[in-house]
Amino acid sequence: MSATVGEGFDRRAAALLRAAANDLKRDDDNAERDLGLEPGSFAEYTSGRRPVDWALLQRAAEVWPLNERDLLPIHDDCPTGLSVLRAKESEASSRVLARGGTDYYEYRDTAMSRIASYRPEWIRMLQVVGNDRADNPDVRWNRGHLLYQFTYFVGPVNYYYRWQGESYCVPMETGDSVWGLPFAPHSFTARGDAEPAYILALTYGGGLVGDAQRELAVLGRRAAHELALPVTRDATSADGQIRSFMAAGCVTPAELAARTGLPPERIRQLTGPGARAVPTQDELTVLADGLGVSVRDLLPPRSTSRHGVSIQHARDARSWVHPDEGRPAYRLTRLAGDPLHPHTSALQVDVLATADADSAPLATHQHQYLFVLGDAPVRISWERDGERRTDVLGPGDSAYTEPLVPVTFSAVTEAAPRVLMLRIGGHVTPDVRHALGAMAEQGIDRYIAEDRLWYSKEGN
Amino acid sequence: MSATVGEGFDRRAAALLRAAANDLKRDDDNAERDLGLEPGSFAEYTSGRRPVDWALLQRAAEVWPLNERDLLPIHDDCPTGLSVLRAKESEASSRVLARGGTDYYEYRDTAMSRIASYRPEWIRMLQVVGNDRADNPDVRWNRGHLLYQFTYFVGPVNYYYRWQGESYCVPMETGDSVWGLPFAPHSFTARGDAEPAYILALTYGGGLVGDAQRELAVLGRRAAHELALPVTRDATSADGQIRSFMAAGCVTPAELAARTGLPPERIRQLTGPGARAVPTQDELTVLADGLGVSVRDLLPPRSTSRHGVSIQHARDARSWVHPDEGRPAYRLTRLAGDPLHPHTSALQVDVLATADADSAPLATHQHQYLFVLGDAPVRISWERDGERRTDVLGPGDSAYTEPLVPVTFSAVTEAAPRVLMLRIGGHVTPDVRHALGAMAEQGIDRYIAEDRLWYSKEGN
Repeated sequence: MSATVGEGFDRRAAALLRAAANDLKRDDDNAERDLGLEPGSFAEYTSGRRPVDWALLQRAAEVWPLNERDLLPIHDDCPTGLSVLRAKESEASSRVLARGGTDYYEYRDTAMSRIASYRPEWIRMLQVVGNDRADNPDVRWNRGHLLYQFTYFVGPVNYYYRWQGESYCVPMETGDSVWGLPFAPHSFTARGDAEPAYILALTYGGGLVGDAQRELAVLGRRAAHELALPVTRDATSADGQIRSFMAAGCVTPAELAARTGLPPERIRQLTGPGARAVPTQDELTVLADGLGVSVRDLLPPRSTSRHGVSIQHARDARSWVHPDEGRPAYRLTRLAGDPLHPHTSALQVDVLATADADSAPLATHQHQYLFVLGDAPVRISWERDGERRTDVLGPGDSAYTEPLVPVTFSAVTEAAPRVLMLRIGGHVTPDVRHALGAMAEQGIDRYIAEDRLWYSKEGN
Repeated sequence: MSATVGEGFDRRAAALLRAAANDLKRDDDNAERDLGLEPGSFAEYTSGRRPVDWALLQRAAEVWPLNERDLLPIHDDCPTGLSVLRAKESEASSRVLARGGTDYYEYRDTAMSRIASYRPEWIRMLQVVGNDRADNPDVRWNRGHLLYQFTYFVGPVNYYYRWQGESYCVPMETGDSVWGLPFAPHSFTARGDAEPAYILALTYGGGLVGDAQRELAVLGRRAAHELALPVTRDATSADGQIRSFMAAGCVTPAELAARTGLPPERIRQLTGPGARAVPTQDELTVLADGLGVSVRDLLPPRSTSRHGVSIQHARDARSWVHPDEGRPAYRLTRLAGDPLHPHTSALQVDVLATADADSAPLATHQHQYLFVLGDAPVRISWERDGERRTDVLGPGDSAYTEPLVPVTFSAVTEAAPRVLMLRIGGHVTPDVRHALGAMAEQGIDRYIAEDRLWYSKEGN
């Protein structure tokens, strides 16, 4: 259909078509009748012998209760598990964006993949300011954007952000970082032009892009506003969650009291209008049991951001060696983040190991973005499908690695390399991971590539 | 592009194109250069004046690090908030599926929507058996399927299920129900042909269909198996979750001890190989703090299913009136479910109210499916965008309603109506709902329909 990027696209599209027909309980004959196909052709599509095309998707979306995108896979542009964008390629994507007639930023793309929601840019500040005032008229603010933004600062950069009408300016130094919420206006300038002043603006959509956005776009503005749940700095009250599950199960306060054994008065304190009571651990357990959920479902997430951002200055960042003091391969520094995104981890990695064999592999369930800071090149080795590969990344090179790919860094020259690492969760959330763990045998293999009708025509 | 179903498809596609270019930090000039478009045409596409077409999507997926489906919205086939499929329409979709040369099931579609992952079928058992043995050779098993299945039984139906090679048979009666995990083989027969024997097989994909499946199809089998997390009957141990966040943050045991103040020996007990220790509430709090997550993220979900299914017999199902004994509009009966799916609620609704005004609206954050059981018609009224509508559903009619649409039932004749209600979560998970709640002002409106460049050319 459009296998111009990577491989396997048509094969994955074929599996999705079979899965969709199975879901709708259509065998080949039914599917051919519904879609107006000649006899025998459905098996050709679902086996991959005939590529699925746009006309077929449109026809399916018309006669079946699904959407064109429900039948479309994604491209695999990272078949070895790691893909690199060289500094030269980044430079080639350079473009200057002006604000109000003044050249304001130079943008360069860095490594991205069709598998992950990263949109990471290297951005140089072209506007030089003489003070740190948030109301400096030389500062050109943007309108904010959908994506979450993790920013790493290099050089004398001023960071401006606005929250609920109030504007702030924070002078930053190399190694400082910030994590910010979507749609908050912000800006950056340089405090001088004697040394480089740039940022790595690592934006990503996380759970916000994709299916959820499509669904809310149809449900509409009112529903989206009503569905929004407040986020607080400490996560102790469970009243919102309990009320939501009560509504979901049509559970009245009297019924909840009967199910849990808690007195009606206590149910009122925990879930009534203006409820402020915090359930005890034992109460959480019986409430979860009564509502048919897990305790985790009753606890809200917390955020440590203030005015929409979490700032981490290098001077007070935590730093430790890995894997241990006796055999240190890396010195790690924790960068900005927020518990609201538990699956986002930002780290500065100073590579101490001087040979691959003396280093230590790092692996995670997250997607991973890498950018080589400083002037020292770094050797990187990684493994996918039993095959081990090695490459050298130079200063300004960046890379993307797939989840679970173990990556090992070591120095190439005498200079210790420094790597910026941003890991993010993808669409395979803990809920999905537990769903995989709960499937019947062979389920996982068929889930990712359905290859058969849901029953055998022959009987058993 | 393909606005054959519902309306607004082209408008939503235009907003997605603008959002994608914003994410990539492409203004109109950059986008036109990248996509090979004539000057001025990008604004025509993103304003909806020129419909986005397949050729443009393919070009975008080639030159930008995204996929065709990332630019595709879904169809709105439920503009009033509720859509009905009449019993006659269900009958028209009737098809008989044979197994091993024997007619085995009659299938009929019931209400579905392009907005939700329901694939609900009315299925009549054509195979009559003379015993309740799981190894009866007249039973034709399927191979299992991707979707979760909630089943409501009517008449003398035998339910067969298989888990880890073991087969089971449970004789069911009207009002019994079962919830089952994906890909477990199962079957149904009738214990006689004197009375109707059928089921409502309400399958749905939940979080398994959509983006997560696409991502795992590219990451491959090995990654999918490694990402699977075990599900247990009680959810107390946090060792898997803690270890996962330690790997994500490259946090060593020594560093975790330093961050939390817990002794290294206790860290080993909680997270070391074969860890069995259960953290106390206070320990969970400091561990969450040290890992930069919320307590909820450290707690696993639980499941109450046995051998892949949760069975609820009508004879011991909980039943209560709503909203209260003094003014009972409904008698509710809780049907089968599992804490593994906290956002799935199955209920049997016996309608006691004889007039709309004496009844009570039911609303939830979930998608909702309705099927009229028994012989009595039911009056249903609902509201969306301030407009109130009413309809009468007859026996065998089914309906889908959007999240947050309040629905009120009342009797039409002297006979009390009985409605089967299955509510499921969509892609707007609690994580997404909290993300909505954390956005800067105007964020929600722009999130669901981006209408502008992320900055102003004029400056501020």
